[in-house]
Amino acid sequence: MPVSMAVNQNIVELEYAVRGPIPQRAAELARAGRRTIPCNIGNPQALGQSPITFYRQVLSFLEAPTALARERRFRGAFDANSSAFLGVDESDFVDPWVIEYCEKMLGHLGSGIGAYTDSNGPAFIREAVAGFIDRRDGADSGSGVPADPDSIFLTNGASEAVRFIIDLLISDAADGIMIPIPQYPLYSATIKKAGGAQVEYHPDEEKGWTLDRAILDDAICRARDRSITVKAIVIINPANPTGAILPAEGALEVVDFAEENRLAIIADEVYQDNLYGAEFVSFAKLVGKRDIPLFSLHSTSKGFHGECGRRGGYVEIRNPIDIEGADVRLRDLFFKQASVALCSNTTGQALTYIMVTPPPEGSPPHGRYQREKETILSALQDKATMIREAFEEMREVECFGRTGAMYLFPRLGRLPGGKTDFDYCMALLEETGLCTVNGSGFGQRPGTHHLRIAFLPPKEMLDQVLPDWIAFHNAYVQ
Amino acid sequence: MPVSMAVNQNIVELEYAVRGPIPQRAAELARAGRRTIPCNIGNPQALGQSPITFYRQVLSFLEAPTALARERRFRGAFDANSSAFLGVDESDFVDPWVIEYCEKMLGHLGSGIGAYTDSNGPAFIREAVAGFIDRRDGADSGSGVPADPDSIFLTNGASEAVRFIIDLLISDAADGIMIPIPQYPLYSATIKKAGGAQVEYHPDEEKGWTLDRAILDDAICRARDRSITVKAIVIINPANPTGAILPAEGALEVVDFAEENRLAIIADEVYQDNLYGAEFVSFAKLVGKRDIPLFSLHSTSKGFHGECGRRGGYVEIRNPIDIEGADVRLRDLFFKQASVALCSNTTGQALTYIMVTPPPEGSPPHGRYQREKETILSALQDKATMIREAFEEMREVECFGRTGAMYLFPRLGRLPGGKTDFDYCMALLEETGLCTVNGSGFGQRPGTHHLRIAFLPPKEMLDQVLPDWIAFHNAYVQ
Repeated sequence: MPVSMAVNQNIVELEYAVRGPIPQRAAELARAGRRTIPCNIGNPQALGQSPITFYRQVLSFLEAPTALARERRFRGAFDANSSAFLGVDESDFVDPWVIEYCEKMLGHLGSGIGAYTDSNGPAFIREAVAGFIDRRDGADSGSGVPADPDSIFLTNGASEAVRFIIDLLISDAADGIMIPIPQYPLYSATIKKAGGAQVEYHPDEEKGWTLDRAILDDAICRARDRSITVKAIVIINPANPTGAILPAEGALEVVDFAEENRLAIIADEVYQDNLYGAEFVSFAKLVGKRDIPLFSLHSTSKGFHGECGRRGGYVEIRNPIDIEGADVRLRDLFFKQASVALCSNTTGQALTYIMVTPPPEGSPPHGRYQREKETILSALQDKATMIREAFEEMREVECFGRTGAMYLFPRLGRLPGGKTDFDYCMALLEETGLCTVNGSGFGQRPGTHHLRIAFLPPKEMLDQVLPDWIAFHNAYVQ
Repeated sequence: MPVSMAVNQNIVELEYAVRGPIPQRAAELARAGRRTIPCNIGNPQALGQSPITFYRQVLSFLEAPTALARERRFRGAFDANSSAFLGVDESDFVDPWVIEYCEKMLGHLGSGIGAYTDSNGPAFIREAVAGFIDRRDGADSGSGVPADPDSIFLTNGASEAVRFIIDLLISDAADGIMIPIPQYPLYSATIKKAGGAQVEYHPDEEKGWTLDRAILDDAICRARDRSITVKAIVIINPANPTGAILPAEGALEVVDFAEENRLAIIADEVYQDNLYGAEFVSFAKLVGKRDIPLFSLHSTSKGFHGECGRRGGYVEIRNPIDIEGADVRLRDLFFKQASVALCSNTTGQALTYIMVTPPPEGSPPHGRYQREKETILSALQDKATMIREAFEEMREVECFGRTGAMYLFPRLGRLPGGKTDFDYCMALLEETGLCTVNGSGFGQRPGTHHLRIAFLPPKEMLDQVLPDWIAFHNAYVQ
């Protein structure tokens, strides 16, 4: 007789649509030999996006440092007698600048990439992250507040940082975190698992998913009516799942709102490179010198980097909250949380370093790095445009907000009697192989229907599948 | 005025001595230029242990697949005209067998190592792990129960697997998990954070940290007297922090005990390669066909692998518990937990594959792999012996149990008036630079004093520091 036990009900109840029934059905179809297109998740390399060459050259040498000396010797032999190297030319060698870059990193790492690091990550990487933040926000030129390497924690992707923050802030079931609706289900799932309360606020879809004070005030009042202690507000900018970019005015209203209500801001900025021409303004810059607790997240998974599987990321903490009733600093509690799992993975850490320390202008690998970056970002923008154009041919489909992140979140209009957006996405998958996620997986206003599509498939694939989708849609809603 | 908030009290209270005040003081000393020897943690590469060459060759090529074709071309050029390759010889080339191995892995990975994988890890890696378990336990030759790849989850080290298991099993504050005392603080910290109860059992130190039914029965009775629902028992074998190896009789008593009390077994077997001549018997093999829920953990961090920072590991689940009051399978709940963080890091996953699929006998890289493995393991054994011999020169120091894992856990005898083992370890650090962890950081019988030392420093370093330790000790206890 099998052993039977009660388990953590919060885990039984938590939902995670991005990896839910629709992607699971897609996996079944793929195993049965059907072509499927995984647009359920922002996973660019699974859809053929190439990694940045420089990143991989460095990671490759960090794995096998003896290959660095070998590279120099091979290059020397080639230079001395290239005629003996059949089928090899100069471009087959890694540039000496890259070799020096690797040697410097290995010097900092000391014992290489295989050892546990400090729980918060190696100091040289946290210093490089701080330098990156300062350059990005202009704090290196005197405006703004410089980042402190000791307030930066390297984590397994931004996801782990979100877990650390929410697990720490939720001290009982009446503690709440404000999240946008729709939201990335990492937030709802982590709040659920921590046993806290989800406090929803609703960006204005028809105004491009923008925010104003009335929206935020309304949400916090409703929470207080339920006797919830609101502790923090999550902002995802550019947004996931909507892809929308928050204009600076809306972002400043969030900062004012947090200050007045004495909330922490959790700024999920993992899409900070996915703006397609718009300007990124970080919450660190917006908060400036005001004493508002801020957790800012970044990751190697998104942007033009696309190194999702590496689980590289960090959180930067500013103006840490004072811990009520305990003589301990927030930083020490973060450190303890990180210590239980010893450290984040070292490849993710190394990649975070490389991401914030790319080859500078004028260095030999810069040209190729810049070209690869621009190619990826402009392809993403083109693909978003292709999909938006397809929406125009779909009956009653509208898509609001300026394109950012890697997602479009169209509103589906009226669906045939009793059908949900889950039904729609499942049928779309069965019919066309296109795997998207139903809007209800992210939360949405009752009575509305949406889906999220990651605009990642190669253009040729979109050329094939978009007409199928248009045909499917117009038949489905009839 | 800084924002002040109550936070999760469980995180405020949790302790993690392995990364606690003593190692933090060691880091301060190191920053000030003092020589310190980090024996507080099983982190071999930080103390100069070299990685296995084969592992790194493969990881290096997975990062930069274009280097595979280049390797073939360089090798071809060398074979055609080796005289032109100054300072390069045949041993500088990676064996074609390794190149094929990498190509096969890349074929399985499909889109390379940068993409998110399935939440539980790629099927080909889980299949390889299942094959490894079957070979290890003789299930491939008909005895025992074969492993099921769908019941294997790849995780960020074994630590993440422990978190998944404990977070799931603790459904309220009266739920308890049995852990040995002394124990690895991952367990106490994770139970604390999940808000459950720690149920302690005490292996018999003077009998080499062995177990019998009376010890286990006593512990569960005391827990039931406190109205605790005991759900699982943790066994670490070989043990951490004691390093002791659990004899098969003791292990079988645990299996009987779990069956009678309808508990799950959490078998932490990350040191399964650190037995130094003793035979490893897995709990999967001991459980056999009996319907006892079992979670078995393994990792790339320990053994002769030592790749701690990669955070590679897995949990295998057998005879899953039935979830009371919910129509859901244990596997699905694990899958959901893993999904929230999307997947474990891909380098750790790849390394797990390489660890369970080493070059077989007769393949070209086998000889070197085997030599490196044996060199590491025999050096570890020699170093443990050196330290044990030093104990004999220290007044009233005794060390019980057959040497396993990477640790010795000597009992310190009487300390001078009012001094604790924490004081002792701190003084030892200040005096000699040797960083160990006080026994109280792992739990111990009241009134006893211990410390844990990882037997990892190079022999020359031990030759230097052991006489200092002996002198320090005999002066300290006087």
